[in-house]
Amino acid sequence: MGSEFELIDQAFRAGTTFRWPGTEVPNGDDASVHACEPGMAWAVSTDTAVCGVHWPGDFPLDQAADRAVCAALSDLAAMGAAARQVWVAATAPDAASMRRLGRGLCQAVQRFDLELAGGDTVRAAQTALTVTVAGVLPQACAMRRDAAKPGDDVWLAGRVGFSALGLERWLAGDRDPDMITAFARVEPLLATGIAIRELGVCCCIDISDGLAQDAGHVARATGVAMHLDLGACEGWPDLVAMSGESRATALALAGGDDYALLFTAPRRLRESLAGLAQRIGDCRPGAGVIVNLAGAPVDLPAHGFDHFVSETDA
Amino acid sequence: MGSEFELIDQAFRAGTTFRWPGTEVPNGDDASVHACEPGMAWAVSTDTAVCGVHWPGDFPLDQAADRAVCAALSDLAAMGAAARQVWVAATAPDAASMRRLGRGLCQAVQRFDLELAGGDTVRAAQTALTVTVAGVLPQACAMRRDAAKPGDDVWLAGRVGFSALGLERWLAGDRDPDMITAFARVEPLLATGIAIRELGVCCCIDISDGLAQDAGHVARATGVAMHLDLGACEGWPDLVAMSGESRATALALAGGDDYALLFTAPRRLRESLAGLAQRIGDCRPGAGVIVNLAGAPVDLPAHGFDHFVSETDA
Repeated sequence: MGSEFELIDQAFRAGTTFRWPGTEVPNGDDASVHACEPGMAWAVSTDTAVCGVHWPGDFPLDQAADRAVCAALSDLAAMGAAARQVWVAATAPDAASMRRLGRGLCQAVQRFDLELAGGDTVRAAQTALTVTVAGVLPQACAMRRDAAKPGDDVWLAGRVGFSALGLERWLAGDRDPDMITAFARVEPLLATGIAIRELGVCCCIDISDGLAQDAGHVARATGVAMHLDLGACEGWPDLVAMSGESRATALALAGGDDYALLFTAPRRLRESLAGLAQRIGDCRPGAGVIVNLAGAPVDLPAHGFDHFVSETDA
Repeated sequence: MGSEFELIDQAFRAGTTFRWPGTEVPNGDDASVHACEPGMAWAVSTDTAVCGVHWPGDFPLDQAADRAVCAALSDLAAMGAAARQVWVAATAPDAASMRRLGRGLCQAVQRFDLELAGGDTVRAAQTALTVTVAGVLPQACAMRRDAAKPGDDVWLAGRVGFSALGLERWLAGDRDPDMITAFARVEPLLATGIAIRELGVCCCIDISDGLAQDAGHVARATGVAMHLDLGACEGWPDLVAMSGESRATALALAGGDDYALLFTAPRRLRESLAGLAQRIGDCRPGAGVIVNLAGAPVDLPAHGFDHFVSETDA
């Protein structure tokens, strides 16, 4: 780490001094140390975001860093955890880039009352961020992807397809903030995750690789068939209006980067869940994902979201 | 993530199925979930290692990955924690490189009874690993860098200078395993960290950026002067024999990547600690790091270890 980076590193920390009460040793030592709360469990997830893979090379780095933190938080949302700490490893070729990453990072850290518990800044050719997040939830309550049951309803909180559409528009040169916000600004559904867990939901996944692929993960992990009605998804008419039905279908099923929550729940929870999500289908004995639109079956894409650069060079 | 990488990712997991009993949700869901143990605390640290910065471009990637895990574990050793989980984010340009990183990762994970609790593999131009490790220790017992006291002895567990010498030899084309092992094979002093914490040591740091710089961190964080006798360090005569006194001094004080443990302790612990480390100095009222060799003061290097590539391009 060059000394210029060290200064930036200190600036990161200065901008984010919030600590959770259980923290015994904060950022700045060899490791951070956090007291365990009796009866609670830790949920931890790591995500890497690389310039040119997870965001376009001309995308503002502060927004890229904000997104990277939020994408990692979405994994905690899917478990039903309350977010607590974040550790960030950043590489960038120059101090200006690192500073911009730091600005976006601090924004996200402050917006979600996170504690920046550690990190690492390295000068390297590639601009990339690895974000590790930790959250807490009561023991034996985590929502998992292998806990669906035949007969469960399938619910979707948040919208799918809009982020991929926003990215498409960005890549086409469109800089209208309204159009690209869905890509640029990830809103991890942390409060929804906690609320549905508290209502008794056991099975949840975050939609990061497209509705079809992530529903497939649940179907496979659990051993059920997931029957989904695309038209029941929140915002579907808008997506069709903006991109046409055929493109809307591809964006929703395989667009990726939605960070919506897909979950299943017994019918008795219908009333309680109605204000939190859209009911888009049900689980049946069998296997796989079956998608319908206006009563007719929809062909599934062969693949989910491979990052846009990989699609061309894979 | 391309599907080839996905297969490799699955191979990583298959090679490392060990789980700690408290793990409620293992690798493979949106996040891993781990039950908290009453009275215990979590220590967490993140480190990034980049090809061409933290290891030479022609260094075997499996050894590079093994080193990266061990370097992160050294941070847990410095806190006195027992290692438990690891989360690894890896980027590489091709499947062969990713597979080699995975092999080294699995080696280290198995050697230290770690649980591979999560990760991410991304195809990208740069080969890099970000390793997050978690360990446990009793609450309010973590060794910190700001807990030295005037009158404390200063101890060093492990050797300094040999890793930097091994790297020098590697860069000069020397492939004799005996010469480069000190660089290639990091041995995190986890058992020593736990042992000294249990004996009552409160102040410890791992030496990753050279003895002078890391001793300086303790001196600054605590507000003491650290007086060190270089000749008392383990292996000093060997280092001098291999590289000459002047080079040995530079390597020990500013070489870096040693992953030795520097700690301080009251005099009453001398006997108990004698088998675990070398006593190399003491803490006095004042500030800074004062190094002596055979009774004469040694000039300190202006900087600690800046990664060898950064030294040329910073």
